[in-house]
Amino acid sequence: MSPVYEKFLSSRVNYIETSPIREAVSKIAARSRVAKVISFAAGEPDPDVIPRELYGELAREVFAREKKSVAYSPADGLPDLKAEIAGFMKEYEGVATTPENIVVTLGGSQAIDIVGRLMLDPGDIVFVENPSYVNTILVWRHYGVRTIGIPVDDEGMVTERLEEAVKAMRGEGRKLKLVYTIPTGQNPSGVTMSMERRKHLLEIASRHDLLIVEDAAYNHLVYEPAGIKPLRAMDGEGRVLYIGSFSKIFGTGLRIGWLEAPGEIVEKARAAKGPMDMCAPVPSQYIVLNILRNKLYRTIREKAVSEYRVKRDLMISAIEKHLPGLRHTRPVAGMFILLWLPGMLDGRVFADQLLEKHNVAVIPAAAFYTDDSGRNVVRLNFSMSEKDLIEEGVKRMSMLLKEMTGSSQAT
Amino acid sequence: MSPVYEKFLSSRVNYIETSPIREAVSKIAARSRVAKVISFAAGEPDPDVIPRELYGELAREVFAREKKSVAYSPADGLPDLKAEIAGFMKEYEGVATTPENIVVTLGGSQAIDIVGRLMLDPGDIVFVENPSYVNTILVWRHYGVRTIGIPVDDEGMVTERLEEAVKAMRGEGRKLKLVYTIPTGQNPSGVTMSMERRKHLLEIASRHDLLIVEDAAYNHLVYEPAGIKPLRAMDGEGRVLYIGSFSKIFGTGLRIGWLEAPGEIVEKARAAKGPMDMCAPVPSQYIVLNILRNKLYRTIREKAVSEYRVKRDLMISAIEKHLPGLRHTRPVAGMFILLWLPGMLDGRVFADQLLEKHNVAVIPAAAFYTDDSGRNVVRLNFSMSEKDLIEEGVKRMSMLLKEMTGSSQAT
Repeated sequence: MSPVYEKFLSSRVNYIETSPIREAVSKIAARSRVAKVISFAAGEPDPDVIPRELYGELAREVFAREKKSVAYSPADGLPDLKAEIAGFMKEYEGVATTPENIVVTLGGSQAIDIVGRLMLDPGDIVFVENPSYVNTILVWRHYGVRTIGIPVDDEGMVTERLEEAVKAMRGEGRKLKLVYTIPTGQNPSGVTMSMERRKHLLEIASRHDLLIVEDAAYNHLVYEPAGIKPLRAMDGEGRVLYIGSFSKIFGTGLRIGWLEAPGEIVEKARAAKGPMDMCAPVPSQYIVLNILRNKLYRTIREKAVSEYRVKRDLMISAIEKHLPGLRHTRPVAGMFILLWLPGMLDGRVFADQLLEKHNVAVIPAAAFYTDDSGRNVVRLNFSMSEKDLIEEGVKRMSMLLKEMTGSSQAT
Repeated sequence: MSPVYEKFLSSRVNYIETSPIREAVSKIAARSRVAKVISFAAGEPDPDVIPRELYGELAREVFAREKKSVAYSPADGLPDLKAEIAGFMKEYEGVATTPENIVVTLGGSQAIDIVGRLMLDPGDIVFVENPSYVNTILVWRHYGVRTIGIPVDDEGMVTERLEEAVKAMRGEGRKLKLVYTIPTGQNPSGVTMSMERRKHLLEIASRHDLLIVEDAAYNHLVYEPAGIKPLRAMDGEGRVLYIGSFSKIFGTGLRIGWLEAPGEIVEKARAAKGPMDMCAPVPSQYIVLNILRNKLYRTIREKAVSEYRVKRDLMISAIEKHLPGLRHTRPVAGMFILLWLPGMLDGRVFADQLLEKHNVAVIPAAAFYTDDSGRNVVRLNFSMSEKDLIEEGVKRMSMLLKEMTGSSQAT
């Protein structure tokens, strides 16, 4: 007799949800098979900016020379890679750390999951920016946590509101544990947190005994001198767990990220990670190791920054020309712009019609919000866009807006 | 003020333990830096049997040609790879399945972790072979389960004992969920389950409403016609979740495995996996895709099987010559032999002294046991051993045994 699978599932299954973005991505993929789509939907660097031929050469050398390229690495990563990452954090992030404080992970995503596994029990409270990275919200939900969103403005998380929320939640008798933030080039908003807010966030964490999880994925892509430092570099108390990733600069497919954390935490992360997956992919580890060791990081970054800066400027100009009056963010870092549609419009409906009628792809941002305030917001990516199609894509958005609103509101 | 990290940890942390093998591996690595060590400690295929130069060529082509090589794949893997894996399962495993039933994972390890995440609650019962794969025991312990070991003999899990255990546990009012087995070339015993036992196991699962998790990692390495089939190919009810892995044939470093399971399960696995790590490493996925698509699997396997068969025979001959009378397994598949030391001896002490005094590395098997019955057992690997050093290594084991027992017991 066939089993009733439901009875074998854990109580956790109630917290496991398919990413709401998956559906949008599937629609875009389907449409792309029948039409040329101008896509502002990506969350990735441009594969033509990434030195793929170099990776091919590095891979060929590594496979030929290194027997260890096809073997397990230690669970926390190749020792040489951990040393290079510690050097990277010192040189580029102003963070003094040691290889022993680093666990190499399968992208930053796995580091976020490991933090959840080590720290989060059902009913615990975590604070995130509202909007925040949908996959962090989803994966920590697997641990049964309650997620509280804190508003974001042009200076990043509104830390005053965080403190109010902390005080309000204290009364409920739950454990308040983590504040998750992407302070630089945030996904999805593109906003970068000001230094004042960074200081305030650290003060709040100290005053109310919270830990901060700093997702530094977009720290590689800063387009203007912003006078900012990572929270981890400003933290005198050991309250910041730093999630690093090379996905947004070397390509997401390699899947190389890391957790940098105080000894007690990192020791448990290492123990947890071992049987979870044995180790991060070793050929990818060697490719990143060789890029760092050969001092190629700066060159790769400079190329990416100058390319994406041009694309960002083209996109902002096009928005201001064709969608005047619409609220949007002006990123100094990262790869995203948030755009607010006129209040009546649903971002999901707009994105669907934009794809079907005008062959332009954007991501409805509602899934990134912890409440319904993002209903009329869409996320635009500029890093993967094609320069000479950016204006055309935005123009088609303007056309659709006119069709949908039946007015000149957005012209 | 520095935080007290302990108060931020989840209740789960009590279940997270460092692998007991890690210490043994560290000692071997340290000793290898100062002396030439004959190692029987590995859990991997031979990097000189793996076609590393081919991988280098494939990687170079893929990076040059495929923009998607540096981007995310779908969370459940490249569609073409899933199709090739479904084809592999039909051709080599006799399993009819579809790409939609497959989720590509970071090695088999991650598939095992995902099964835990979907199915296991604290207090649930899982049955494993005693001994069994230490990392499965460790990672399911993260979910708070109780692990019951079922003895293994030359025909594999003693299924009569499983049924007794199931009946005994039913009375305790806990949920009995999974039977985890490595039926072919088991780690650490090297034992292959007979067809009679396989049938009996499926009957027990049906009669007592259990699911079976079949870890097929060693199915690639079968040295004699064994007349066996995967449990998944014999299962008429949908009770077997199949964990596939290319680690033991293409190299562990690539980190490519998969979960093949009924639709309801795989759908939840796909949802869970998305935010856990986004996707398996994409360059590795392309390497495996191209190996399978170019029909190179059979050649790679034939070379591995013929090499490891010779090594296995050399090791068994050496054991019978230099350690006569000692109980050991005689694998027809996999890469391990278990060896029982004379009853007084502790495998950990033996392994330590063997390394320090004689520069030979073995793994004490105690960590693989769910009780203390493996205290005097060591695990020997033959796939990674150097052919012309196998006899010398075993001879040194015999010398140490004489020193330790002060007798001719083991000569």
